[in-house]
Order: sequence, then C-alpha cells, then structure tokens
Amino acid sequence: MVMSSASRHNGPVNRSIGNACDRSITPVAPAASGSDFLQLNPEEAPAGGLSDWLARRLRDAIADGSLPVGSRLPATRVLAGELRVSRGVVTEAYQRLTEDGHVAGRGRGGTVVVAAPVAVPVAPAAAPGPVVRAAGSGGPAGAVFAVTPPGADVFDALRAAPARIDLSPGVPDLAAFPRTAWLRAERAVLKGLSASGLGYGDPRGALELRRAVANWLARNRGIRVDAGEVLITSGTAQGLGLLAQVLRDDGVRAMAVEDPGSLGARHHLRDRQLETPPVAVDAEGVRVDELRATGARAVLLTPAHQFPTGVVLGGVRRRELMRWAAEGGLIVEDDYDAEHRYDRPPVPALRSVLAERVCYAGSVSKLLAPALRVGWMLAPPKYRDALVDAKRFADLGNAVLPQLVLARLMESGEMERHLRLLRRRHRQRRDAMIAAIGEHLPGAVVHGAAAGLHLVITFGSAEFADTELAGAALARGVKVQPLSWHRQRPGHPGLVLGYAATPPGGIAEGVATLGEALSEVVAEVRPRGR
Amino acid sequence: MVMSSASRHNGPVNRSIGNACDRSITPVAPAASGSDFLQLNPEEAPAGGLSDWLARRLRDAIADGSLPVGSRLPATRVLAGELRVSRGVVTEAYQRLTEDGHVAGRGRGGTVVVAAPVAVPVAPAAAPGPVVRAAGSGGPAGAVFAVTPPGADVFDALRAAPARIDLSPGVPDLAAFPRTAWLRAERAVLKGLSASGLGYGDPRGALELRRAVANWLARNRGIRVDAGEVLITSGTAQGLGLLAQVLRDDGVRAMAVEDPGSLGARHHLRDRQLETPPVAVDAEGVRVDELRATGARAVLLTPAHQFPTGVVLGGVRRRELMRWAAEGGLIVEDDYDAEHRYDRPPVPALRSVLAERVCYAGSVSKLLAPALRVGWMLAPPKYRDALVDAKRFADLGNAVLPQLVLARLMESGEMERHLRLLRRRHRQRRDAMIAAIGEHLPGAVVHGAAAGLHLVITFGSAEFADTELAGAALARGVKVQPLSWHRQRPGHPGLVLGYAATPPGGIAEGVATLGEALSEVVAEVRPRGR
Repeated sequence: MVMSSASRHNGPVNRSIGNACDRSITPVAPAASGSDFLQLNPEEAPAGGLSDWLARRLRDAIADGSLPVGSRLPATRVLAGELRVSRGVVTEAYQRLTEDGHVAGRGRGGTVVVAAPVAVPVAPAAAPGPVVRAAGSGGPAGAVFAVTPPGADVFDALRAAPARIDLSPGVPDLAAFPRTAWLRAERAVLKGLSASGLGYGDPRGALELRRAVANWLARNRGIRVDAGEVLITSGTAQGLGLLAQVLRDDGVRAMAVEDPGSLGARHHLRDRQLETPPVAVDAEGVRVDELRATGARAVLLTPAHQFPTGVVLGGVRRRELMRWAAEGGLIVEDDYDAEHRYDRPPVPALRSVLAERVCYAGSVSKLLAPALRVGWMLAPPKYRDALVDAKRFADLGNAVLPQLVLARLMESGEMERHLRLLRRRHRQRRDAMIAAIGEHLPGAVVHGAAAGLHLVITFGSAEFADTELAGAALARGVKVQPLSWHRQRPGHPGLVLGYAATPPGGIAEGVATLGEALSEVVAEVRPRGR
Repeated sequence: MVMSSASRHNGPVNRSIGNACDRSITPVAPAASGSDFLQLNPEEAPAGGLSDWLARRLRDAIADGSLPVGSRLPATRVLAGELRVSRGVVTEAYQRLTEDGHVAGRGRGGTVVVAAPVAVPVAPAAAPGPVVRAAGSGGPAGAVFAVTPPGADVFDALRAAPARIDLSPGVPDLAAFPRTAWLRAERAVLKGLSASGLGYGDPRGALELRRAVANWLARNRGIRVDAGEVLITSGTAQGLGLLAQVLRDDGVRAMAVEDPGSLGARHHLRDRQLETPPVAVDAEGVRVDELRATGARAVLLTPAHQFPTGVVLGGVRRRELMRWAAEGGLIVEDDYDAEHRYDRPPVPALRSVLAERVCYAGSVSKLLAPALRVGWMLAPPKYRDALVDAKRFADLGNAVLPQLVLARLMESGEMERHLRLLRRRHRQRRDAMIAAIGEHLPGAVVHGAAAGLHLVITFGSAEFADTELAGAALARGVKVQPLSWHRQRPGHPGLVLGYAATPPGGIAEGVATLGEALSEVVAEVRPRGR
C-alpha cells in the first residue's frame, strides 16, 4: 500500500498533533463514496454472510492500499443504500474493523482508517541475500545489524550504540515517569514497614502487590484472580524463562511462537531449550490451523496487540484457539501493552475466559518503566507450585521495597492517572509518526497503530534488506529495529518503530532521517538488482 | 565441652552487654595459669615447631572445653616463663588463635577465649533415628522440622510459622536499616536520572553500582577489581544459580560443599543439577584432602566465617586450597558476612590472592537487608561472558533505581557508617546471647562467635535430634534452625542461632525458652534411650 499524499495528512488522525506539525496538515479528505465504492458487489457474498463478506472486503482494501490510513469510510446509511443491504450489515462490518483496530469512529468526523492489517504474502519473499553494506552503515553502528541471525546480545548492542534519536520499540514515555508520586509512596512505605519486612520475603512476592495486581487486572483487563494465584516476577522475561523451565520438566519440548513475533522472547525460550516453531500471523492474528500443524503443546501469543504487527486476535480465531486449548494446549498470553489503546475498545484478555489453559504474563515495563523489572504471572493451577519453586530458586523472590511502592501506586489510583496521561501523550506521538511517515516514507505501509507503543512499516516487495536500512539509519543517529529481526521466515522488509518515548519533534526528525537512509539503501541496491 | 558456671559469665566477653543482663555478670575469672596449665609439655613439640604445637594444644583445649569460652589465657610473659620457651613462641601462638577467631585481645583484660572451634568428631555420631515428636513440637509449628531431609520450601515454612522471637540466622539488625539515608539517596537519584535511564538497562548492572562495589571491595575486602568485571545479581542465591548453570554447560557435574554447610546453597546447586559432595570442616576450615578425594572440580566455600560453624580458614589450608585451585579447581567464595567481625582482625578474601581461580560472591543481605535482593559476583575471566548471558536470560538485569541508591550509599560513606553502627549493636547482642547460653543451656558448646551474625551451639554426644529441639522451641514461640539441616552426614545435635536481628532482651528470653525446650526434649528422649 502506498500512502498517497492526499491521504497521509488527513485530519482526524492528526487532530491532536502538536503545533510543530500543524502547518503540514491538509484539509480532511472527502469520505470515500459513490456507487462504485471499491467495486463492491453484494452478490458475491455467501448466503447469510453479508457482514462477514463486507468486513473482509474492506480489510483487503485497507491492506492493499485502496483504502489508505487516514481515509474515511462512507457513512453506514450511505453505503447500505448503495449496496442495497440493511444498515445493520454495514454497522456490523464497521464494528468488526473497529475491534480489529483498523478503523476508528471519529464522532462527526465519521469512520476513519487508522491502521493497515499485515498483508499475508501469497508467496514468501525471497530469503535475504548476503548482507550488502550501504555506504552509511559501516563502522560500529552498522555492525549491530550485520549479524544474521541476531544473537542474544543484539538488544544490548543496539542500546549501547550512540544515537541522536531512539525509535526502538518497547518503552513508554519515560520522561513522564511519576517521580514525585514514586518518592512519596516510597516515603510512606519506609515509614510503615516493620523491621522483619526487610528480611527474606515470600518468593511469590509481597502480598500487598499481589493484591494490588489482582485488583488492577480486574479493573483494567477483565481478569478475576485471587492474590494467592499471582506470582510477582522480575518482568515478563523472567516469567517466561521460569515457565519454560517448568514446561521442560513437564516434558514440553516446543513453544510455538507468532511469526513475525518477538525476537527477545524467542531468545529466552531457546535459552531454556524450547524449540520455537513459527506460526504465521495474518490480519486476524495467529493462524490456528498452522499452530495445530506444528504439533506444539504450548504457544506464546500477544492477542491484544500482536508484537510486532499490532493485529488484534479476531473473534473466530479466539474461538478456534479456545478449542485448541481445551483439547490440551497451553496458551501463554503476553499482555505486554494492552493498557495502551487509542482508536479501539479494550480487547479482553484470553485469561479472562479460559483460566485453566492460559498462563498470563504482564508487567510495569510499558506502564511505568522497564528499569523497574517488575511483572506478574498468573499460571494455570497445574503449574502454579512449580513456578513458585522456580522463582524461589531463581532469586528467592523480588526485592520488597519497590513492590510495596508499586502496590501503593496501583491502589491509590496513581497508576490509572499515569496511564491516562500516557495515553494522551502517546496518541500525539503516534499521530506525529504517522504524519511523518506519510511525508518522508511515502512507499511505506503502516500497521498496528491503533494501540500500543510502536507501529510497523513495511515496504511491499522492495528488494533491500531491512537490516541495511536500520544500519544506515543508525549511522545517521537514529535507532530502529528491522522487522526481519522478529521474523523466523522470510517476508517483506520493514521497520518496528517505537513512538512512545520520543517527543513529536524528535519523531519528525527521526522519520525524516529514515527517509534519507531509505533513499541511500535503495540507491545502493538498484544497481545490484539490475 | 560443658560451659562451667564459673566461666560462663566471665567479664570480658560481656563487657558491652546492656543493663538488662548486667546483674548476672560475675567478676572476671582469674587468668588460667600455673605450672600445670593444661599439662603442657614443650618436649612433645617437633623441632622448630614450638608455636605450631602450642597453638594446636590451645585450640584442642578450647575445643574440648578445658579452656571454655570466656576464660582468660595466661599472659605471654608468664606462660613463656613457665614453659621455658621464648616469649615470641607464645605471642605467635596467641596471634594464630586470634586470627582464627578463637581468642581476642582485650587490652588490659588480657587474651580471652571468645569462640570454640568445631570439634571434629573422631567417629561420626549415629545417624538420627526416626523422628520422635516431643510433647511441645506437635501442630503446624513442629511440622516445619518433621520433614527429613528438609525440602526447598523449608525456609519459607519456617518464616511463615508464627513466633514471638526469631533467632533464625542470616539477617543483620533490620531495625537499624538506614531508612532516612535511603530515602534521601533515592530522592537524589530520581532527581538526577535521565529518562533513558528508566529503560532497559545493562544486564551486568548499572555502571554506578559496579564502580561503587569495586571501591567497596577494595576498601573492605582487599580485592582489586575493575567495574567491568563486576556482575550485579539479585543476591548470592541468584549468582550461585547462574554460575551453576554456566558450570554445567562447561561440563562440571559437581560442586563440593562444606559439611556442615548452608542448606539453602545446597538446594540451589541441586536445583541446577549439580551434585554436592560433602567435605568435612574442622577447626582449620575445610579439609582439602577430603576435597581432593571427592574429585569435584569446583567447591563452594565460606572462608572468612564458615557457615554455620564460624571457623576461619587457616593459613595452611589456604595454601593447600591455592594449590588445588592452581591445578584446575574452581573456588566459589561466598563472602556472605565477612564485614561483620568483633574480636579478630579482618580475614582477607581468597579472591584477593587468586583472581583467576576464584569466583567471588557478596551481597547487601547481611550489610543492609535481604529484602533488597542485591548482590555481586566477580567471575574468573573464563566464565565472565557466559555469566552475563545467563543474567540477561534470567531477568535482563537488576532493577535500576535500587542499584543507583545503593551506589550513592556506598560512595558517600553512609554504608561504612551503617556498618560501624551494626558492629556495635551486633557485638552487644552476641555477648547477650553467649551470656544467656551460659545461664540457660549450660551443656552447650558455643562455636564461631568472633564474627558474623550468628553462632552455633552443639550438645556433645547428646542423643536427641536437634530438629526435635527446634520444633519444641517453635512450639514455645522461638524460631531457630537445627544444625542438622546444614549437615549432609550425621553429627552432634546443635542449633544455629542468629543474634543480630533481636535486641538483647529478646535474646535472653529466647535462649531461656530454648533451655525449657531442651529440658522437655531430653526428658522425652531419656526413657527411650534406657
């Protein structure tokens, strides 16, 4: 999909962009309409499946660029009249796209496309050839991206590389960290804590935090859980490692993972000797038929906002997954950034409907700061005791003071206040990034921008390696992650771009730099390709 | 050894006991002297080995009770005259006992026995018979001690058991935790920290803390190390687990451990599939000949203050160990409480003399509080990278804020101030415990009280099981650890008693309760034995 210059500055998406960008905003595009709208022909629809058919056609149109991000859908009344279907059919189709995060209701602004689904490549793209060094990607900066496949220390290497602007995904707006509230809570904790509270603690975590997490999950994720079932971890990375150990001891040899899916998670699973068979992700989320075909007894999923594509697990897939799990499969639900959403309703956690077969993991890394290293895990009863043992052997339990501070922030409403602040700031930054991409990377397709802290851009069937592009960007002082890091099987080149931690001005500058880097990489590749 | 009523209240040891105990203090015992002092006969000494011989004879006398804790040695001038040896021979022998922690110079109070070495049983005591429940040890309290051998959750069970007085070993005076200084440092940290400092960090730990630890170790433990060689861990339990993993990957299958030695450490090693062959500890520390016989390539040691016996690794054993290590052995030095010493000079860390073959582990658990879960490890170059990888996979590195707070406390001199405060308070409590033992447990032999946060008492060849005694004590509201928990091979019954976290009044009451529990257990056993 190509973001046309008519669509890329559309008003609704950019409404909240700060002044720095306002001058580039063009008037709102007219709503797509007319009797030939997308050449839709309801006679193609199977009997009784009009809404399904319409939603699918709209999704395809968004994916292939016929309905670019920023464009407005026809009003339900209008489209229903043109297609000669009942208005409920159209409303229902729009609703599905809204739940998927592809479109968003903008009040009187109508229904607007906010994120493109990931197109499933009909045939996989060719495997990346030998790494060719772009002019700007030499030196220590480019070296980060020269290793294929990337090793376990690749994130450390990227973090250590000097850069002017960091668009790596995975962190919220860290400048907004509630330092004053944290210190105030810590003072109260230190004042109230008994001496024995400073001794060795419960390996499951402090009861105060386990209670606060249970309440948080009830309020924010629709999960009902008792504090006794909550295990406090040093973040999801630790929780995943401990679970992998426990599963290994239970005879599990593989945990299927989404493809594309988190490289870091894959590293962690493999370190614990679990294989990670890839399962494709399409516009509806993970392909359950492929999952079955792997034969794996466990799968790691990011249902609320697939990492990195941003796809929401669709309703049909959810039901298929539940069936798979009910037959003995274990779902590991990494709910890493579900609290951050902008243009769509909250997506309920899988854990809220199938406690017996879902191991749920969350953390404060995306809510407050990764540096806190605090997360939680809700394990199915079968694995609960073994996980506590594993945590005890890992480190005897989390440090106590930060747990008690967090518990206070969660129970006092401070965390929700912070989350609301973050949502406003993140949405601004997301909008700034989409606008900048439209301006500087007109060939890029944006995915998964309705929620989370990052988005993905792909470049269709372009022939360059995205590691090249990331290397060229880093040489120019901009950090990004190549999409191929997170793929196990070949696919279109792309980038994973975090917008949450960078102010709009930095985002605009960073994306402009990406545009320069892209020109360079494409110029390098073209002579090769011909 | 029986602590006679004449010796148990000797002045010098008790000088710093608070008023609560002063009334029970009897006048200072006259210095042991006379031509028949210990029936010493210098003609037994090998040629040129007079000091060695004298030190050995004195050590034996302390071990077998002829020189009980609290008794005073003859002045060097006097003893030299009586034995017709040069005064330097006696001074040298006293010096060695001082270094071992068995005696202490008390200025004009002379040289006083402060701790008995662990007697090496000539023949091991009979294996403990079936657990017999003492009257008071039933119910949930006694159940903690009913499981033989104790499982990995035994410390959690003991911690969860309700009790009036907690004499478990392993924690410093937690009421002295520098809350104000901590909060002040945290405020400064939050003020100065950059936003990116709240992101994902270096898996080795924050550079500020690694530097502070390097400086701390140079000042306090004689270790010269670069910050780049320091790995910050979530405490020694984690460090040991990570090291065990790395050693397993290097083909190591066993890590020899001291016997008696830490039960918790043994649990952690076994969890990582390392065998833990026992090596006896005698009055000079670990038996290197036994270590060689195990064939193990690695050994876990507590050289500065053996856990639990309190023995200091002697000079000859140090040299033997160095030889063993130079031939390919790896020493894991758990320097858990070396900063705490009362009647003896500091014992240099093994790491300070053999960096290539020693993996050194320390933590703030005994300096500040176990609840902080922060420790450090200095690995030999061979294992350094693998350990960083293991830490990364474990949890992506420690939480950042507490690291920066600690770094400030260490670099500002606050930690040393705190340590000096702790030493004063701990010494008082240690003295209170020794006095109370003399009063309420007259049959008990005290070991390892010259340093650390705990001491050990044994009961000679008494026939009861120490788990019975610990159970009976818990039923009366006093928590202690049975020595047998920390043994792999049978030995005399005993208790490991922490004194650092309990004020003198609580110690006196707790030990009095132990006396009652002992009477009950002995009364239960006697009819059985006859």
